[in-house]
Order: sequence, then structure tokens, then C-alpha cells
Amino acid sequence: MIGTTGSGREHFADRLLAAIEKKDAPVCVGVDPRPDMLPEAFGGGIEALRRWCGEVLEIVAPYAAAVKPQIAYFEAWGGGEPFAGLAVYAEVVRLARRLGLLVIGDAKRNDIGSTAEAYAAAHLTGPAAVDAVTVNGYLGADGIRPFVDVARETGRGLFVLARTSNPSAAAIQDFADAGGKTLYEHMAGQIAELGAAEELVGASGYSCVGAVVGATYPAEARRLREIMPRQIFLVPGYGAQGATAADCAAAFHADGSGAIVNAARSVIYAHRREEYKGLRWQQAVEQAVRKFASDIARAVGRRE
Amino acid sequence: MIGTTGSGREHFADRLLAAIEKKDAPVCVGVDPRPDMLPEAFGGGIEALRRWCGEVLEIVAPYAAAVKPQIAYFEAWGGGEPFAGLAVYAEVVRLARRLGLLVIGDAKRNDIGSTAEAYAAAHLTGPAAVDAVTVNGYLGADGIRPFVDVARETGRGLFVLARTSNPSAAAIQDFADAGGKTLYEHMAGQIAELGAAEELVGASGYSCVGAVVGATYPAEARRLREIMPRQIFLVPGYGAQGATAADCAAAFHADGSGAIVNAARSVIYAHRREEYKGLRWQQAVEQAVRKFASDIARAVGRRE
Repeated sequence: MIGTTGSGREHFADRLLAAIEKKDAPVCVGVDPRPDMLPEAFGGGIEALRRWCGEVLEIVAPYAAAVKPQIAYFEAWGGGEPFAGLAVYAEVVRLARRLGLLVIGDAKRNDIGSTAEAYAAAHLTGPAAVDAVTVNGYLGADGIRPFVDVARETGRGLFVLARTSNPSAAAIQDFADAGGKTLYEHMAGQIAELGAAEELVGASGYSCVGAVVGATYPAEARRLREIMPRQIFLVPGYGAQGATAADCAAAFHADGSGAIVNAARSVIYAHRREEYKGLRWQQAVEQAVRKFASDIARAVGRRE
Repeated sequence: MIGTTGSGREHFADRLLAAIEKKDAPVCVGVDPRPDMLPEAFGGGIEALRRWCGEVLEIVAPYAAAVKPQIAYFEAWGGGEPFAGLAVYAEVVRLARRLGLLVIGDAKRNDIGSTAEAYAAAHLTGPAAVDAVTVNGYLGADGIRPFVDVARETGRGLFVLARTSNPSAAAIQDFADAGGKTLYEHMAGQIAELGAAEELVGASGYSCVGAVVGATYPAEARRLREIMPRQIFLVPGYGAQGATAADCAAAFHADGSGAIVNAARSVIYAHRREEYKGLRWQQAVEQAVRKFASDIARAVGRRE
């Protein structure tokens, strides 16, 4: 088990690559608990959230290198008790680590100075610490460095938003300068620079400072791969958001390393898909995660 | 009391302007509980957080139109219990409203689609609902609209980051196109457009979609005032971050309306400032908030 879910001192990128190697698939399952999407048997309430998340983790653990709980849904899942769902988020983080999964907390947190330090402490240290957290870099280096500092000290990581996979992202992220350089390329340059210092790079050659690069635009992913050679890319957009495994492959280096593809809805809510009709929801999720893992592994040349 | 802290149905901008009118000062106090900054008597732990926040609110309530709790510090303040500080955040929100203060939740949340809907639900509805929340717009309109929709339905608001007051913000936000238009101006154009629909604008002529505009660059604030005439500006940077009251005045319309200035450290930690030495911490905070309110009121021409 060494190298996959250690105490947090080993370098994040090395741990992530080891986990990908072990599962033989660079995939991550997004855990997005939506009250309107859960199988009917669960009902509502905090206990439903806890049970469903726990079952999903057990099902996907043999196939995925990591899970990415989306904290927004836990933040909203409180009922009468404000933020009660976050206690379950912390349980999910700990259960995932016990199951040998790395955990990427999708929090998109952002602020500056001591406020960013507080977010970094809340998410990369203490009882709800994840292996890596997502960060929004609109505030510039002041808003990213506090996360980098904590990541370096703890053997954890971060993924900074470069290019996202949603339709309207272009209206901001494709904003371009006189030379045709886009904002997302500019942001990528900043991410590469912030993650370049020797003490941030693991034995694998990858930095603990990664980037979020949507899969819906493969040409952009290839360009970003050039700008950020040492960043691990967290790649959303596969499945429900329309990107194919071949689209996702553009985010990887030629040797098949350097990225991890995330799928959420198409896996965790597979019981709602026509092709899995008639199966128990757990069987649908298992078949979907196996197919997801083998699709991606094949597309990036891990399995011929 | 009508118009200041209603049930949430009245338009946010109208409620905020009424609160500013009532206190005769367009000021907001940032509530940033940092364990290393509290007066010594408090010690640590959840009870210290609760008591200190409660006392600060009582002291500033007669002078400020609004408070802006910074959720990062509550998120980090858990000790052994993950996210336990957020229960106190919810209490602070409710206490502030009982004291006649509007509450701006400084959360800088951001995501897309149903995830952004979950954040909007967590922060603009339910037991921890604030009057307005801050939002990071890097993901484009998809990431802002879910907050706008909930704000419209509930009589609440949002402030989208346009230009922030930190030193490295320029490296991202001043990125400019061939015509010299900066990213922050481009973002401001998107904010103005998203907040322009008739049903989003209150009787005061201001939209429920506001903007965060740092006070450290008055020339930029004037330019942004032109691009976003109907947005209320939330203006950080006064005091500890170096902006003067005159700098802040650039964010207002000529009639003295359209913005609210935030100060945090220089008020809530006034007991650490040389000029208030020898006072009890509560007296230091009270003198600092009075000075802050009258400085800003004078600079924007409310008091001659």
C-alpha cells in the first residue's frame, strides 16, 4: 500500500501516479450527491447522504485511483441544521482514504493572504484533509501561494482552474491579448510558474500544483500540455458533459501519464441510464465505472 | 425597521440602501475571526469564536449598515471537529440580522450548473441564508446565473469579483486585449449584462447583482463605475490594506450612492493598534468603527 494513501508526507503527485498505476487507469469518480438523483430507496436526510456515499465509494474503489467529492452538495445538504452535510463530507474523505482511494476535494476555494491560509488549513490539514483541493486563481498568485505552501508542507496538492468544460467558460477564459494569447493560456503560465520550484516537484517529475483542464476542447488541452509540462491535469467533461475518451487523451503526455479524468453523473447515476435499465443501482454503477476506467485506459494507450 | 432586515422578499439593493440611509454611512465591517488576533482573554475553541463574534456584532451594529463574515475562518475553526465553526457562522448570520445588520457572506463560491445551484441554496436560502454572497466569476455566466436566479426569487443579492485589492491581482485581472480592454473591465461588462434585466433592478435603480471593486486603484474604480452604473460596489481595501477614504470615494456615484466600503482588521482588531493602546478591546473596536463610518461618510459627501 505504500505510495497510495500514506500519511501525507510523500509527494502528492507521486502518490497519485502510484494509485493510477495500481488501478491501471487514470480515472477519478466525482461524488456529487444530489437529492433529486439518488436511487429512490434512499429518501432524504443526512443518513441517506451518508449511506449512499459510503456504498458508492465501496463500489468504485477497485477501479478508480481517486474520488472527487463535490463539497457544494454537502454544504447544501443540511435540512434544518446548517451545514450538517459537511460532517458527512469529512466522513466520506476518511472512508475513501481507508479504501485506498486518493481524495480530491472539489471546493474551488479562493481568497488572499490569511484568508486563503484558512481555506488551505481547513481542506489540506486536520480531520477533513483531502489529498488535493481545487482552487480558483482569479485573484492571482497571492490567492494560490497559501495553498501551495500548505501542500508542500503536508505532501498534498492542488488543482488550479485553467480551462473549464462548461459552455460559457469561453466568454471569460478565451479573452485574448494582442498576440492572441488567451486568458486560460496566461493562467496556465502562472500555474506552471507557481509549481515549478524544485521542492514542489516529486520523484515522478510532476508538481504538487496541478491544473483543471476541461476535456471538451482537445486542441486546447494539447496547447496547455505544452505550457504546463509538469502539471497533472484534472480533466472533467467525460460522459455526461459530452467529451469522449479520445478527447480526454489529449490531456496526457505521449507516455500516457500526466492526467486523471473525472466522471461523475455518468457513473454515480448510471442507474438512470437507458443502457443499464433493469439492473440494481449498485450493479449499474459498477458496470459504468468499469467501462469508464477501461475506456480511458485504452484511449491513453495503457491497454492495447 | 421596514426595509432594513425584512424577510428577504424586498429587493436586496433597496434594503441595503435603506440600511445605509439609516446608519448614515455606507460601511460594512468584515468579521474575520483569526485565532492569532483575538484579544487574549478569549483563548481558543468554539466558545471563544461564538463569544467574540457576538460581542463584535453588538459593538458595530449602531454604526455599520452591514457585516461581512469571512466564511474561510469559520470553515477552518473546527479543532478536532471538522467544520464545527460553520455552525457558529450560521449563528452569527442570524444574530446580525436580529441586530438590524445586513449580512454579506464572503464565500467567493463558484461552480457551474447544479453545483452552483447547490452553493446558492446553501448560502442564500435555509437556516444560514445571508442577504448577499460573494461569487468568483472565472467560470463565466454559467457560474453566476444560478446565484442570480436564487437572489431574484428570494430578494437577496450577490457581489461578483471584478477587481480585487491584493498586490498580485493585476497579473491576472489586468490581462488586456488588443484594444487595451482589461480582463476586469471585460468581467465588469459581463456582470453589468447579467444584472441588467428589469426584474433584477430594485426601486432604487440598483441591481441585486453587485460587484467587488478594490479601493486601492481609484482610477480603475471610476472606469468600472461607468461600465457598471447599476451595480452596487462592495469595496474592500480600506484601512489595513492601505486605501484611504478618498480612494474609496471613487467607487460611488456623484450622489454618494452605489457602494459600500468594507473594513475588517483595522476595526475588529483595533485593540492591537498603537492609537488605541490602553483602551479595553471593546472600546478600541467602537472608536475604530465610529471613525471608519464618519471618514467614509465625509469622503463620499454624506456629511459636510
